[in-house]
Amino acid sequence: MLNLPIEYPSFYWSQTKTAIDLKVKDWIDQRIPTDEDALLKRQWDIVVMGAPLSRSSISASGASEFPEHFRKAWKGFSTYNIDTDQDLRDLRVLDFGDIEMHVTDINKCHSNIKMSMEGICKEYPNSIPFTIGGDHSITAMLVSGLKAAVPSREIGILQFDTHLDLRDLKDQGPSNGTPIRNLIENGIVKGSNVYNIGLHGFFNGPSLINYAKEQKVNYITLRQARTNGIIETVSKAIQELESKVDYIYLTIDMDVLDIAYAPGVPASTTGGMRTDELFDAVITAGRSSKIRAVDIVCLDPNRDSSALPTVKAGVHTFLSFLSGFLNKG
Amino acid sequence: MLNLPIEYPSFYWSQTKTAIDLKVKDWIDQRIPTDEDALLKRQWDIVVMGAPLSRSSISASGASEFPEHFRKAWKGFSTYNIDTDQDLRDLRVLDFGDIEMHVTDINKCHSNIKMSMEGICKEYPNSIPFTIGGDHSITAMLVSGLKAAVPSREIGILQFDTHLDLRDLKDQGPSNGTPIRNLIENGIVKGSNVYNIGLHGFFNGPSLINYAKEQKVNYITLRQARTNGIIETVSKAIQELESKVDYIYLTIDMDVLDIAYAPGVPASTTGGMRTDELFDAVITAGRSSKIRAVDIVCLDPNRDSSALPTVKAGVHTFLSFLSGFLNKG
Amino acid sequence: MLNLPIEYPSFYWSQTKTAIDLKVKDWIDQRIPTDEDALLKRQWDIVVMGAPLSRSSISASGASEFPEHFRKAWKGFSTYNIDTDQDLRDLRVLDFGDIEMHVTDINKCHSNIKMSMEGICKEYPNSIPFTIGGDHSITAMLVSGLKAAVPSREIGILQFDTHLDLRDLKDQGPSNGTPIRNLIENGIVKGSNVYNIGLHGFFNGPSLINYAKEQKVNYITLRQARTNGIIETVSKAIQELESKVDYIYLTIDMDVLDIAYAPGVPASTTGGMRTDELFDAVITAGRSSKIRAVDIVCLDPNRDSSALPTVKAGVHTFLSFLSGFLNKG
Amino acid sequence: MLNLPIEYPSFYWSQTKTAIDLKVKDWIDQRIPTDEDALLKRQWDIVVMGAPLSRSSISASGASEFPEHFRKAWKGFSTYNIDTDQDLRDLRVLDFGDIEMHVTDINKCHSNIKMSMEGICKEYPNSIPFTIGGDHSITAMLVSGLKAAVPSREIGILQFDTHLDLRDLKDQGPSNGTPIRNLIENGIVKGSNVYNIGLHGFFNGPSLINYAKEQKVNYITLRQARTNGIIETVSKAIQELESKVDYIYLTIDMDVLDIAYAPGVPASTTGGMRTDELFDAVITAGRSSKIRAVDIVCLDPNRDSSALPTVKAGVHTFLSFLSGFLNKG
Amino acid sequence: MLNLPIEYPSFYWSQTKTAIDLKVKDWIDQRIPTDEDALLKRQWDIVVMGAPLSRSSISASGASEFPEHFRKAWKGFSTYNIDTDQDLRDLRVLDFGDIEMHVTDINKCHSNIKMSMEGICKEYPNSIPFTIGGDHSITAMLVSGLKAAVPSREIGILQFDTHLDLRDLKDQGPSNGTPIRNLIENGIVKGSNVYNIGLHGFFNGPSLINYAKEQKVNYITLRQARTNGIIETVSKAIQELESKVDYIYLTIDMDVLDIAYAPGVPASTTGGMRTDELFDAVITAGRSSKIRAVDIVCLDPNRDSSALPTVKAGVHTFLSFLSGFLNKG
Amino acid sequence: MLNLPIEYPSFYWSQTKTAIDLKVKDWIDQRIPTDEDALLKRQWDIVVMGAPLSRSSISASGASEFPEHFRKAWKGFSTYNIDTDQDLRDLRVLDFGDIEMHVTDINKCHSNIKMSMEGICKEYPNSIPFTIGGDHSITAMLVSGLKAAVPSREIGILQFDTHLDLRDLKDQGPSNGTPIRNLIENGIVKGSNVYNIGLHGFFNGPSLINYAKEQKVNYITLRQARTNGIIETVSKAIQELESKVDYIYLTIDMDVLDIAYAPGVPASTTGGMRTDELFDAVITAGRSSKIRAVDIVCLDPNRDSSALPTVKAGVHTFLSFLSGFLNKG
Ligand SMILES: [Ca+2]
Ligand SMILES: [Ca+2]
Ligand SMILES: [Ca+2]
Ligand SMILES: [Ca+2]
Ligand SMILES: [Ca+2]
Ligand SMILES: [Ca+2]
Ligand SMILES: [Ca+2]
Ligand SMILES: [Ca+2]
Ligand SMILES: [Ca+2]
Ligand SMILES: [Ca+2]
Ligand SMILES: [Ca+2]
Ligand SMILES: [Ca+2]
Repeated sequence: MLNLPIEYPSFYWSQTKTAIDLKVKDWIDQRIPTDEDALLKRQWDIVVMGAPLSRSSISASGASEFPEHFRKAWKGFSTYNIDTDQDLRDLRVLDFGDIEMHVTDINKCHSNIKMSMEGICKEYPNSIPFTIGGDHSITAMLVSGLKAAVPSREIGILQFDTHLDLRDLKDQGPSNGTPIRNLIENGIVKGSNVYNIGLHGFFNGPSLINYAKEQKVNYITLRQARTNGIIETVSKAIQELESKVDYIYLTIDMDVLDIAYAPGVPASTTGGMRTDELFDAVITAGRSSKIRAVDIVCLDPNRDSSALPTVKAGVHTFLSFLSGFLNKG
Repeated sequence: MLNLPIEYPSFYWSQTKTAIDLKVKDWIDQRIPTDEDALLKRQWDIVVMGAPLSRSSISASGASEFPEHFRKAWKGFSTYNIDTDQDLRDLRVLDFGDIEMHVTDINKCHSNIKMSMEGICKEYPNSIPFTIGGDHSITAMLVSGLKAAVPSREIGILQFDTHLDLRDLKDQGPSNGTPIRNLIENGIVKGSNVYNIGLHGFFNGPSLINYAKEQKVNYITLRQARTNGIIETVSKAIQELESKVDYIYLTIDMDVLDIAYAPGVPASTTGGMRTDELFDAVITAGRSSKIRAVDIVCLDPNRDSSALPTVKAGVHTFLSFLSGFLNKG
Repeated sequence: MLNLPIEYPSFYWSQTKTAIDLKVKDWIDQRIPTDEDALLKRQWDIVVMGAPLSRSSISASGASEFPEHFRKAWKGFSTYNIDTDQDLRDLRVLDFGDIEMHVTDINKCHSNIKMSMEGICKEYPNSIPFTIGGDHSITAMLVSGLKAAVPSREIGILQFDTHLDLRDLKDQGPSNGTPIRNLIENGIVKGSNVYNIGLHGFFNGPSLINYAKEQKVNYITLRQARTNGIIETVSKAIQELESKVDYIYLTIDMDVLDIAYAPGVPASTTGGMRTDELFDAVITAGRSSKIRAVDIVCLDPNRDSSALPTVKAGVHTFLSFLSGFLNKG
Repeated sequence: MLNLPIEYPSFYWSQTKTAIDLKVKDWIDQRIPTDEDALLKRQWDIVVMGAPLSRSSISASGASEFPEHFRKAWKGFSTYNIDTDQDLRDLRVLDFGDIEMHVTDINKCHSNIKMSMEGICKEYPNSIPFTIGGDHSITAMLVSGLKAAVPSREIGILQFDTHLDLRDLKDQGPSNGTPIRNLIENGIVKGSNVYNIGLHGFFNGPSLINYAKEQKVNYITLRQARTNGIIETVSKAIQELESKVDYIYLTIDMDVLDIAYAPGVPASTTGGMRTDELFDAVITAGRSSKIRAVDIVCLDPNRDSSALPTVKAGVHTFLSFLSGFLNKG
Repeated sequence: MLNLPIEYPSFYWSQTKTAIDLKVKDWIDQRIPTDEDALLKRQWDIVVMGAPLSRSSISASGASEFPEHFRKAWKGFSTYNIDTDQDLRDLRVLDFGDIEMHVTDINKCHSNIKMSMEGICKEYPNSIPFTIGGDHSITAMLVSGLKAAVPSREIGILQFDTHLDLRDLKDQGPSNGTPIRNLIENGIVKGSNVYNIGLHGFFNGPSLINYAKEQKVNYITLRQARTNGIIETVSKAIQELESKVDYIYLTIDMDVLDIAYAPGVPASTTGGMRTDELFDAVITAGRSSKIRAVDIVCLDPNRDSSALPTVKAGVHTFLSFLSGFLNKG
Repeated sequence: MLNLPIEYPSFYWSQTKTAIDLKVKDWIDQRIPTDEDALLKRQWDIVVMGAPLSRSSISASGASEFPEHFRKAWKGFSTYNIDTDQDLRDLRVLDFGDIEMHVTDINKCHSNIKMSMEGICKEYPNSIPFTIGGDHSITAMLVSGLKAAVPSREIGILQFDTHLDLRDLKDQGPSNGTPIRNLIENGIVKGSNVYNIGLHGFFNGPSLINYAKEQKVNYITLRQARTNGIIETVSKAIQELESKVDYIYLTIDMDVLDIAYAPGVPASTTGGMRTDELFDAVITAGRSSKIRAVDIVCLDPNRDSSALPTVKAGVHTFLSFLSGFLNKG
């Protein structure tokens, strides 16, 4: 069972689970050879996988190093959220490890990602797979894997991004510029079931806009979202999605953030979202009972500044989702 | 014709103009020896000049390196603006190159700047010269050059800055602390036709305040602007200027921005403007039909952090102006 | 008289006091051997002390270097505040120097801090001691010193912080995680007279919350403060404190700021306060006539980025307090 | 003719060729559409190509950005070499541009590299192609391209590297860990005709050593080279190669340098070569009349420190080769 | 058994021990709760302990973070040493974890260090304890612990350092400026049995020189060592020590390195040792059969530059010792 | 008396002169208003002046900030030199302060420098003026000032530099590229009395070589100096100068150092001198009884990396000269 191309986590935290005050590192269970069978049989709310692939990025990217930095950063976070007066320890979270990657065969990487997602979704139908990228090319594979597990279900996408990710696959293949188009062209997701929030400025070309309009992709610029309220905008998108699809896939491209808050992405931009806005957006999304899977992508720790604002924002985004999820109706 | 002290751009982009999705680097024409005559005869909406001078700065500055970094950064920006659903390619923009500078003779630098501005204004009476500094001392020369080209017209100034730039020229000559006073004392611009928006905190001394009050310079602190709305504040200043002058000169000192958004200025300060506020301010200004010339100054790429937030903010400010300009009534 | 364990300031600025435009470095008096007696006899509004101790921090910290960086940064600030159109030179401020520290005996450091505070409070009953940390462990000593000077008075605390600082002293002694608990357990301050503003996210554990609730510590998260308005929240806390205590001690942990604004703290977090919010909060506090003493802590210049945003924010916070103080009813 | 998958250089320098003192940027000719035919017909000593590929690297790498940084850095170097009292302007050098790369199809990238090299070698049989990587995977393709152009000739390799690059292709495909093995397994180069100089420390595994011994690859550690003299060691290797092969291919992996001199490589190591040693080695190699082609690889400008020591070392290495070449017997 | 104040390692590597090519992370055994008893019974050549203490440093130091960075960096090193054609996997090495530290009680930290060392020495009389600091204050405790375990044996010290570490304990207690004096004054080690190699420049005061001369401490400046040869100098010191003592304790203060090679130490200096010199020195020392214990101290990862030259030099120093040790007569 | 355009030092160290172990900051006397007359009458071995001018640099430079950083860095150095077993406190050194500079009038800056040097030389005929630049343009003024003080004496120059500094003044005026030519053309120094040591690589153009040869300037490349020995090369130059001139002026351009050792210069180069070589060279020069004045130039602290290797190298160079001087025959 569970013969998936997934390696054990790159390292294990020494955990002390008995303290009143718990760090995230002491709370999340990690798949470990000696204890594997018992672990795999448990009921999990969330299954975390790393997808350390970024050689599929248009510009040079070290997003493949984020899963390891993500785990390292757990020690800076408590499980208790003072904003909501809740403790995440009530959730059961498993770190399953990292999907196996090949150095030069990007197709192999992509099929491993799809296969892993399909396997996890089948094995843990009541858990949310939360994938830590890697670049945005992985989302096409993850959603395809989900679809393969639940072929009869309609899937919608809620995307926070500075980009539409609708580039033509003929130009450069399944790169981090194409995942949404990839899914539309392959009939996995309808354009009208994609909601992109956070676009701004001079970072998308007309061909993408044309395609978005043709396919009825819903996109709301950051400016519009701020005018209507970030939380209200996300709530409305969720509501519309809930009325149209069975499952919502949430994909968070960390480059949606402003360069002042998140220098550690391959093509950081000025004029983007603030972290408090993103956290609000993600908490709101986490409350939807139709959210079926999540990913965080395009966070390159090699480009982060020395205080690691982007890596920390990545972990905080993950925990914000869990906070919303814990509050689910 | 056009025997001006301006050198060709330091480098040329290899351009591919046929793509649907166009980068700024593929769109802006650059003055080039082989094609010069034809180029110079065209009608241009915007003529860009570099003014690589910063040895006139009070504190050590590498703002002289901004024109080159400005051009390099074009490749990170599309011509299409998703916020306004407009494409800047409808504008005709020429990169004329950099004004010639002398290593040790600051007066010579200044007279080259004035002479270049006068020449461009006369040759291209329907184009907007957009100068890329360099430090703020260049503004006195640029406005003087404009005045020399249109001596009978009244010129007003809209300035975004953390400083009043009203220091006494007797103390340190025509440095980056004196341009506005320089223009007032030389009768080029009336104090009452200067509008400075963005002042804050502990970065101006009482002598400057006294002079500003004497000369009826209009200054609105960032705090006041936020209370009334940035866009509203700029609109009101523009309206007042439009009723009093023939031409508005827009000067943008990038040190108006907060240090979190723009570390790459010689004396970055805490408590300044956010980039989204500056972009709104500049778009608003760009819509005025009386804007006659623009500059961006005091951006020192050597001090920028490695993700280049300040350089990117500088280019985005330029493109924001063009977006407003494209919308001009 | 004044035989306190305080060393002269680490260096003296060459001052030119006659200029119209005064820098902070030219304004603040510094205790100096040749002039000491005359200086010490004057009436001071504010007495500044450095407390260069950070070996008492939970995580590695260079906050001990802040007093020196604080003084160095004075040359970047004018005494004139354009937001309030006031000049701080109307206040009399003395830089008393740095409290003596021991390399390996943290108790000795702490008793020197307490003794210095008590001495200054007795000698200058009408002055506000403003201590430049150092880490937050010093606050327990500073408030204890104040209490020793005015034993019959009730003292309350207004704290801006990302943390509750209520860790159990049994676990790690008088570290920077424990100062408020230290004061409560020693009967110096009642829990109900502590107001903590700025908490957010995943940076406090349940044991601290439990203790806070038991002791009726008042805490207002950043999210709540933003909902109600930062200024309104601080005003309300001040009002409540004024009705309950004789003296308010203001303690500002710079880690309350967001990592984008203040990377230079030992455990910088995403999701924190903006500098404009902190400055508003501090100005508001400065207006209370019951403020008796202030400190700024946990600013580690070694971790700051090269433009020194955090060090500058620290000085601006100090000056913001003085601006509020100058406006005191 | 010359229908090769090579794009024009990413940008062109504005050149002033008449000065007595010439910068490298003013000297090297760049392929440019308007002037292409005349240029391509000339006799060139050196033809420079960029190979901006690094998604084939084992660890995350931005070596794809080196060709652009390489060209930018030309403006910091004179053509005159004071050590040898020679002027490189006596050589004819063409910047042909960058080999076209695909975002997700690494095989396509590799075949473009091979095809470009074969084409250049055939078209310019008397010129030395000098390729600017990119990661070390390109060397397998470049040598294969050379072999395809001169199939009857025996080719040897002189390699400066911290690594043997003999990993098994079965494990990870044609990555930057495999180029030499790739060439040996494909019969392009005999193991005994490979000379690797610069190995040191703990950066190669036993499987590589075993393979090297089996295949009679010649490897000389840095320690051995220092004992015998760097110049002497390189001279001896060259001499042996000259007696065995028709052509020598020189490949310079910049990670051979010590981390103090070259932090800007994906896996910088302590204990490596100094730059003065590398320059001596390269000058010595440049003097051999059997050198037929050269590459510089694995220099990642994104990881360089802000003074750009590694990028500058890369350009200096290139110029050092030309200095040796100019002195060729 | 083994009830020592030592915590499990902060994290565990996922190990794959079957590969031909082994990384250090896959080779070193780590003490782990589930497997503890079996592990503790084995014969170990080397027992590694972290001593994460740096609050005892004169200047602010994050050397306490080195043990964790040390472990993280294992993945960049192979077990095979190409210089000596040896494989370290033939040695049995146990990572025992980190000695427990107290946040504010430095004496408690110090006694834990001493107790841990004594325990390990008694339990593993045939193993070499290799301690990863932490600052240099720990050496006094480690040598005292060793002495407590073997009270009748004469211990000598071989020290690589920029400093004499002979400051008076009366001035600042058992800080990182005092360990050697501490040991001499407590009769643990005779001054004449201390050999310090690497002193240079302006970083020691006359009082230390006087004390060194009084106590007959042997010190050889870097300049003298270079004149006589680094290896020869170390060999001679080792020989003299071997003739006088039973056991040699080797202590390596990483600040002996030049700032160009090791920026990541609290008080990095210009004019220091190169890494190749230090590695030679340490290999030479490792060959002595009288070496009984080793430490590496004063490496502050927070101050390292982004390529981590100092952290990598620290690990390489550790492996260099093991290489020498493997060659022991 | 001594009415020179020199300001007091920018700040004063709090000094404790009674300790056995003395820091440089506690030793060097600083000119201070209250104590000025007594100070100025004393006999000084060395008079230190800052010349904070770098707007005369070809490329953007913050070398004007070095005098302040130079003073700040004194606290990291002892007066005792362990290499020579000497204590610099036996020398009498005065920090006279900084020469007054003008923001926009470079000629005024230059004449202030010349006038200050002439005044100091006349007033202190037995002291060595040691000037802390600033950029290399100041050397022309300093030597001219010396010549004005001793018009009948022949002056020679010993220069450590990567550049010849023989650019034509007609091209760019008295910049940092011209000082030596300036002196030759003005008849202050004969070309044959100039010795430049340290040139290397591709950083000087043929026009400079031609001029050097015409004027019989002596230049020895770094490569030649290493072949003959750095100390031997400097000794020989000194000997030749001593036989030809009355006074030797030593000028040290910090860009002579390799970029690995000194990233903090405006145009740092690969292939330069190591710090140990420079210190040896400077100590050797310091021993000559004909050395009459010294400067250190072109050190830009704004470009230094965070551990400040270049600033520290600058101070160490200063102290190395004093060590040589103390040993003078
Ligand atoms: Ca995306
Ligand atoms: Ca994106
Ligand atoms: Ca300005
Ligand atoms: Ca300004
Ligand atoms: Ca706190
Ligand atoms: Ca805190
Ligand atoms: Ca290689
Ligand atoms: Ca390599
Ligand atoms: Ca030490
Ligand atoms: Ca030391
Ligand atoms: Ca020079
Ligand atoms: Ca130079």
